[in-house]
Amino acid sequence: MNTQNAESIGQYLLERLYASGVRDIFGVPGDYILGFYDQMVHSPIRHIGTTREDTAAFAADGYARCSGLGAVAVTYGVGALNTVNAVAGAYAESSPVVVISGAPGVDEQRNDPLLHHRFGPFTFQREIFERITCASVVLNDPVIACRQIDQALAAARHYSKPVYIEIPRDRVRVPGYSMPGPAPEVCGSDETALAEAVAETMELGEKSRSPIIVAGVEIHRRGLQGVLVDLVNRSGLPVAATLTGKSVIAERHPAYLGIYEGAMSGEYTRYLVEQADLLLMLGVTLNDVDTGIYTAKLDPQHMVRAAQDEVVISSHRYPRVLLKDFLQALAKSVPLRPEKFVAAPAAVTAPDFPVPDRAITTSRLVGRLNQALGPEFIVVCDVGDCLFATIDLQVHEQSEFLSSAFYTSMGFAVPAALGAQIARRDRRALILVGDGAFQMTGTELATFARLGLDPIVVVFNNRGYSTERFILEGPFNDIGDWRFDRLGEVFGPLQGYAAGTEEAFEAALTAALDNRSSPSIIDVRLDPADASAAMQRLAAHLHSRV
Amino acid sequence: MNTQNAESIGQYLLERLYASGVRDIFGVPGDYILGFYDQMVHSPIRHIGTTREDTAAFAADGYARCSGLGAVAVTYGVGALNTVNAVAGAYAESSPVVVISGAPGVDEQRNDPLLHHRFGPFTFQREIFERITCASVVLNDPVIACRQIDQALAAARHYSKPVYIEIPRDRVRVPGYSMPGPAPEVCGSDETALAEAVAETMELGEKSRSPIIVAGVEIHRRGLQGVLVDLVNRSGLPVAATLTGKSVIAERHPAYLGIYEGAMSGEYTRYLVEQADLLLMLGVTLNDVDTGIYTAKLDPQHMVRAAQDEVVISSHRYPRVLLKDFLQALAKSVPLRPEKFVAAPAAVTAPDFPVPDRAITTSRLVGRLNQALGPEFIVVCDVGDCLFATIDLQVHEQSEFLSSAFYTSMGFAVPAALGAQIARRDRRALILVGDGAFQMTGTELATFARLGLDPIVVVFNNRGYSTERFILEGPFNDIGDWRFDRLGEVFGPLQGYAAGTEEAFEAALTAALDNRSSPSIIDVRLDPADASAAMQRLAAHLHSRV
Repeated sequence: MNTQNAESIGQYLLERLYASGVRDIFGVPGDYILGFYDQMVHSPIRHIGTTREDTAAFAADGYARCSGLGAVAVTYGVGALNTVNAVAGAYAESSPVVVISGAPGVDEQRNDPLLHHRFGPFTFQREIFERITCASVVLNDPVIACRQIDQALAAARHYSKPVYIEIPRDRVRVPGYSMPGPAPEVCGSDETALAEAVAETMELGEKSRSPIIVAGVEIHRRGLQGVLVDLVNRSGLPVAATLTGKSVIAERHPAYLGIYEGAMSGEYTRYLVEQADLLLMLGVTLNDVDTGIYTAKLDPQHMVRAAQDEVVISSHRYPRVLLKDFLQALAKSVPLRPEKFVAAPAAVTAPDFPVPDRAITTSRLVGRLNQALGPEFIVVCDVGDCLFATIDLQVHEQSEFLSSAFYTSMGFAVPAALGAQIARRDRRALILVGDGAFQMTGTELATFARLGLDPIVVVFNNRGYSTERFILEGPFNDIGDWRFDRLGEVFGPLQGYAAGTEEAFEAALTAALDNRSSPSIIDVRLDPADASAAMQRLAAHLHSRV
Repeated sequence: MNTQNAESIGQYLLERLYASGVRDIFGVPGDYILGFYDQMVHSPIRHIGTTREDTAAFAADGYARCSGLGAVAVTYGVGALNTVNAVAGAYAESSPVVVISGAPGVDEQRNDPLLHHRFGPFTFQREIFERITCASVVLNDPVIACRQIDQALAAARHYSKPVYIEIPRDRVRVPGYSMPGPAPEVCGSDETALAEAVAETMELGEKSRSPIIVAGVEIHRRGLQGVLVDLVNRSGLPVAATLTGKSVIAERHPAYLGIYEGAMSGEYTRYLVEQADLLLMLGVTLNDVDTGIYTAKLDPQHMVRAAQDEVVISSHRYPRVLLKDFLQALAKSVPLRPEKFVAAPAAVTAPDFPVPDRAITTSRLVGRLNQALGPEFIVVCDVGDCLFATIDLQVHEQSEFLSSAFYTSMGFAVPAALGAQIARRDRRALILVGDGAFQMTGTELATFARLGLDPIVVVFNNRGYSTERFILEGPFNDIGDWRFDRLGEVFGPLQGYAAGTEEAFEAALTAALDNRSSPSIIDVRLDPADASAAMQRLAAHLHSRV
């Protein structure tokens, strides 16, 4: 057995992270993690300091979605517990974030002393993280620490979920025992079931007059975008995406029909999807967001649903058929499409933008962004009406749209964009965010400024929690009116603009596109009663049901 | 049995909170909690909206410390999980915060659907909060819901710890069954043990030449400040306080010796405490902060330690002797003090302040604040060197000093001060905070501005995490350089000042004291190498040990 001891447990962790593609670790230092930070800054991995720990975790999430694995390193208690919401979000959204928490040393923990940052038995922090990660380890024992690290990182990659690694501070510099890597997991498809599922799907395809693919978020999380494009190109099948799966296929692909989200979809997309007599739901999770708050009209009897490890056709299941294998087999078995090609819907535009003296609206803003959005952008979108608005936004390349679209945690966008832009240095972040969400985490823009990054932030400022107004109005939906364009006064360099009219927005957008040396923020002063086209469609639908 | 049905479970909860003295509930609305918010704004309880959920929980903590019970109401998942760190802090610091979380309706949860804000089994959120609260209930069942509310609130008051109440949104308006209140808990002292412990303590007092009281945080959390003053006044015993217990006795009381914190104490305080041949440690928790990172030189053989429910003398314990009963019995059994009165140390001052062209330092700043600090102030202090600096700050009345001094969560002060100032409308908050901590939660100052409150914020701005620099220096301790005095540009009204010299600080302080209509913030530009007198004493002590 070829075992070689690692120089130290902390260094082994850094080496394995680096080997997994992690080049940057986000976080705020604290005394229980300082030893590991010291090793980090002497390693090839860079530390990216954020102002808070939750934003560090959101950044690691954005980084993970763009590069396959992200990491955040924080101190015990006050640091780790500040990441709980962001890590739970990464779990819900299947983003592989490695949470590295310092802890009091094993020797310090003896006799159960009252150490600062402590909130209960020393085991409680791990027990909390067990509920929001797919693997959690405490590196108390040098004999098994390296093995635990290997297993945790393998779990993060395999399940595409967060993992928790706690390292007591007196173990960071202790040598670990390196061991042969874990045997590769054998979790391939059941070949017989696969063949049968594919055959039945092909047969349904032959009988179908109007088959359609609906592609979901799991395609992105399992890295199957290439296989999907292959299937679409070979079969000629039209493809819609869910909102959580937005941009799993390039939104300018000729076969792309737009976002399907029940009553919130564009009319054309909705018509095409709901009239289909065969729905190939690939990597779709049927949650309340993607079904347009259960306004989707999709018949399970006409569905082939391929999830991560099973295929469901009508009312029967094929267990142990992996999404990847099923997609590849389908792509090889073309044709699935018996009829002529369906024309993709035209992108929403904003004709004659800017119309002089015209107050800006969400719909026209999205139309204008559709014209401006080049292939160099990663779009990172927060929660609320700005997210619904992106149903009509056309993103260029596959997977260049990030959002907390299912977990819907406000405040995701600015810090997640930090991670995304650091992971993809060739791209520029376009951040779409509401005023409420920006008040939560928007000051993390200071970190972009410090690092010389050049995102463009568009604040959909309607002075309140507008999607909540739609559900139940009350004074609690009103929030303070901030001058987001003045943030450069507090931390810079940062270019700020306020825009209440189309002309002002046009001028701001032009200047922001030109500014490549610092963040730009456009405070778009919307009418509080304004709503995205998608929200208006939902309202009309709900009204028509009454 | 006189059972009367409550109009609804949500209203019953509001009524019981009101009856417990809760007049304001902090939080951010979200769809799973909107029904409860609607009830709240139609009740006598006011909703205080904050920008984030963690700051709402810190505010509830500050409110609880000032009024006996605080509450925060948030939505499921994204809301509740954002409070985890602040609630764990309230647990560690014994602050009774009621966490009210919305949740998907009981009917919605059937069939285990993928609802937004969900991150795992619906039970997981409660399981997380079980680890950071002393009671956690889910109000699924209308038959027992009111009873559960009574029990949870009773636990919060009895243990002075946070509790968790989850209310599925379809239960908010459902009538509940009101039942007779729970039988009062019988948890008095063992009278024999109490008498014996008091007798032994009195006997030790008679033999002692230099007895001293060290008073700790539990005195505040159990509301025993009056009993302590009574004991001190009757016995003439000198009294020092721990840092976490700072201001449990008025710091201008003639018997007060200052803060004892091991090597970080003032020389005079340290000498008096460490030379004592009898230490009455009353409500003291022997944690690493209060022992000056274990530099305290206190002999357990000369100690009487009275904790919440036991007294320990030298190496033997008296279980079931309550702190309150022990204090009251001691106060009745005076005298404990055989010798003449010890002169209290003089307050640290800043002579000739402001000296022209002199750069401002932490020590001189604290001296100046000692002169300015009137009895109308509540001092709320964040973590780091500004906290150590307050060892030399003299607060007027008892318990007008709040800090996360044991859990040491950065970012506590600004939001906790919001809660404190709302709970104590007759007081004004003086907020002491470092630049790193302010970057975490300082924008909550916007909420003070919106409500027309007039705190004074003093930012100890040394451009980095300075207490960490002291432990291990590295580039990770550097942070962005914000212009805190310019925050009024983003949200106002707010008066901002930058002060690098004593003259500039004097002018800023004078203006801030005069400004009673909006928050004032003074960005004190310290030399990054500057340190409080306490930190310098610790450094000198550690150096002398080498």
